[in-house]
Amino acid sequence: MSEMPMAPDWQVSQWFNTLAPLSLAQLHGRVILLHAFQMLCPGCVSHAIPQAERVHREYAGDGVAVIGLHTVFEHHTAMMPVALEAFLHEYRVTHPVGVDVAVAGDPIPATMRLYGMRGTPTLILIDRAGKQRLHEFGRMDDLRLGIRLGQLLAEEAKMVAD
Amino acid sequence: MSEMPMAPDWQVSQWFNTLAPLSLAQLHGRVILLHAFQMLCPGCVSHAIPQAERVHREYAGDGVAVIGLHTVFEHHTAMMPVALEAFLHEYRVTHPVGVDVAVAGDPIPATMRLYGMRGTPTLILIDRAGKQRLHEFGRMDDLRLGIRLGQLLAEEAKMVAD
Amino acid sequence: MSEMPMAPDWQVSQWFNTLAPLSLAQLHGRVILLHAFQMLCPGCVSHAIPQAERVHREYAGDGVAVIGLHTVFEHHTAMMPVALEAFLHEYRVTHPVGVDVAVAGDPIPATMRLYGMRGTPTLILIDRAGKQRLHEFGRMDDLRLGIRLGQLLAEEAKMVAD
Amino acid sequence: MSEMPMAPDWQVSQWFNTLAPLSLAQLHGRVILLHAFQMLCPGCVSHAIPQAERVHREYAGDGVAVIGLHTVFEHHTAMMPVALEAFLHEYRVTHPVGVDVAVAGDPIPATMRLYGMRGTPTLILIDRAGKQRLHEFGRMDDLRLGIRLGQLLAEEAKMVAD
Repeated sequence: MSEMPMAPDWQVSQWFNTLAPLSLAQLHGRVILLHAFQMLCPGCVSHAIPQAERVHREYAGDGVAVIGLHTVFEHHTAMMPVALEAFLHEYRVTHPVGVDVAVAGDPIPATMRLYGMRGTPTLILIDRAGKQRLHEFGRMDDLRLGIRLGQLLAEEAKMVAD
Repeated sequence: MSEMPMAPDWQVSQWFNTLAPLSLAQLHGRVILLHAFQMLCPGCVSHAIPQAERVHREYAGDGVAVIGLHTVFEHHTAMMPVALEAFLHEYRVTHPVGVDVAVAGDPIPATMRLYGMRGTPTLILIDRAGKQRLHEFGRMDDLRLGIRLGQLLAEEAKMVAD
Repeated sequence: MSEMPMAPDWQVSQWFNTLAPLSLAQLHGRVILLHAFQMLCPGCVSHAIPQAERVHREYAGDGVAVIGLHTVFEHHTAMMPVALEAFLHEYRVTHPVGVDVAVAGDPIPATMRLYGMRGTPTLILIDRAGKQRLHEFGRMDDLRLGIRLGQLLAEEAKMVAD
Repeated sequence: MSEMPMAPDWQVSQWFNTLAPLSLAQLHGRVILLHAFQMLCPGCVSHAIPQAERVHREYAGDGVAVIGLHTVFEHHTAMMPVALEAFLHEYRVTHPVGVDVAVAGDPIPATMRLYGMRGTPTLILIDRAGKQRLHEFGRMDDLRLGIRLGQLLAEEAKMVAD
């Protein structure tokens, strides 16, 4: 499985819902659900964010780490961190959310570029060994997400790492 | 029915989705659905705004005027007009929306105070003669809204005015 | 409005959820929501029957009479009255339901023919004076149903009768 | 894992949507989703049956076998096989469905007793080696079902059998 790339580290300028910054290395051994969103993206608000929040509330203790990434690539002035903070409060989002680092002269933020994301919502699954195993743009239904999560949870960290 | 108050005029600092400002007087003869919302209020986003938009798209030609009112009373910096504009674009809101006038030293904007609204979403129905006939805070289901709209539509402007 | 036909009387072989048979004449002065369904019609089960039941529970005291009509025109052996009775019990249907009279040699029952219904679900609105005002085949959304109900409720029985 | 019981064979008097009867032994090596339902059980019709059908349509080729079991324990005359056949046709159920064998003098059919089911809907997951791994009465959400399916799919048949 040499073609499966290691997930690159995210670049975050500010965190919400976590006391300390979170890195990929710290989450080694867990299955990571990384979801990129914008607070004014309707499909994120109605589907992807509540779905990620449910995974966090129900499976955070069972080996899954859910990370939200605010990847603003349009309407930048409308989605500043102060607005995101109000949004997370009003929508009762409790999982950690990082603000993707802005790049001078580029509307696309750093991590979004690094992962080659096409838009929001984007859902990425990273296995216990840090390899990227799924990258999906658009709405992903619960059943399919569950099956992929279940398969990754069944893998031993060391098996994949070897 | 002398106890039925005339609806007070709204006070708006900026309009979207209309070429010219709109006043109650201009809409005389039509049934008005006035809905107060905040762009970061989950119940507004998931229910009240799309409901108002459906009424606008399906009944604007049949004697109903739908007016949105952005009554920001919390998280003011997160819901500036520039953010509202992005929101209306992303959520494909096509009915006229006014920004309720801010009042110095008061978190509650002017029209919200004038109508005695308790929060968002709030839905107000005004009859063909300009009288306020319904004021409801919270989620209103389609069936009940439809019945009230149908009853008001059945009234002749002059009958009520007398 | 001379072209608006008087609604024909329904023909029912057996009633559920009512102590005595119900006729159009008895309901004169009320707005009647007559909905034709089959217990094995998916659109009836998921939408039309619960919609009619909600109208019954919320507006039966406000001048609306809801009548269900079991118009079996296919799978006759699967939808006998004994099966309908179990269905009404399991789905907690509390509004009156009549079984449309079977006609020898015809798969279509009598009232279904009389009203010229094309299938199920079919929703018919009859005004306070007994005139048929709406006949709709297929799914009808709550907002539109509400508006039509509201308009009919606003009519005085005598005004229409004249 | 010696306490994990082998799933007992189902007892079926009539099959739909399959040319030949299906047994547990035949499905060895696959993950089996066995769902018990009644055609007049609202929670089965609105949730469990469409959920099972989706799993069948999307994952039947990926090692999952979906089996419906019509476990009639009430309203027996309303849910005879002829009625079930009409139901499966109208609701476009395409996965194999067996009729649980009736037992003289007992309202509960044979397989329902054998598995100790409490009612409908009941969902049972059987692993590739024939062991029962989940038994759930009531509504099960897609995310949780997906995770359990994914975990079982990740197991090798031989690993479990040993």
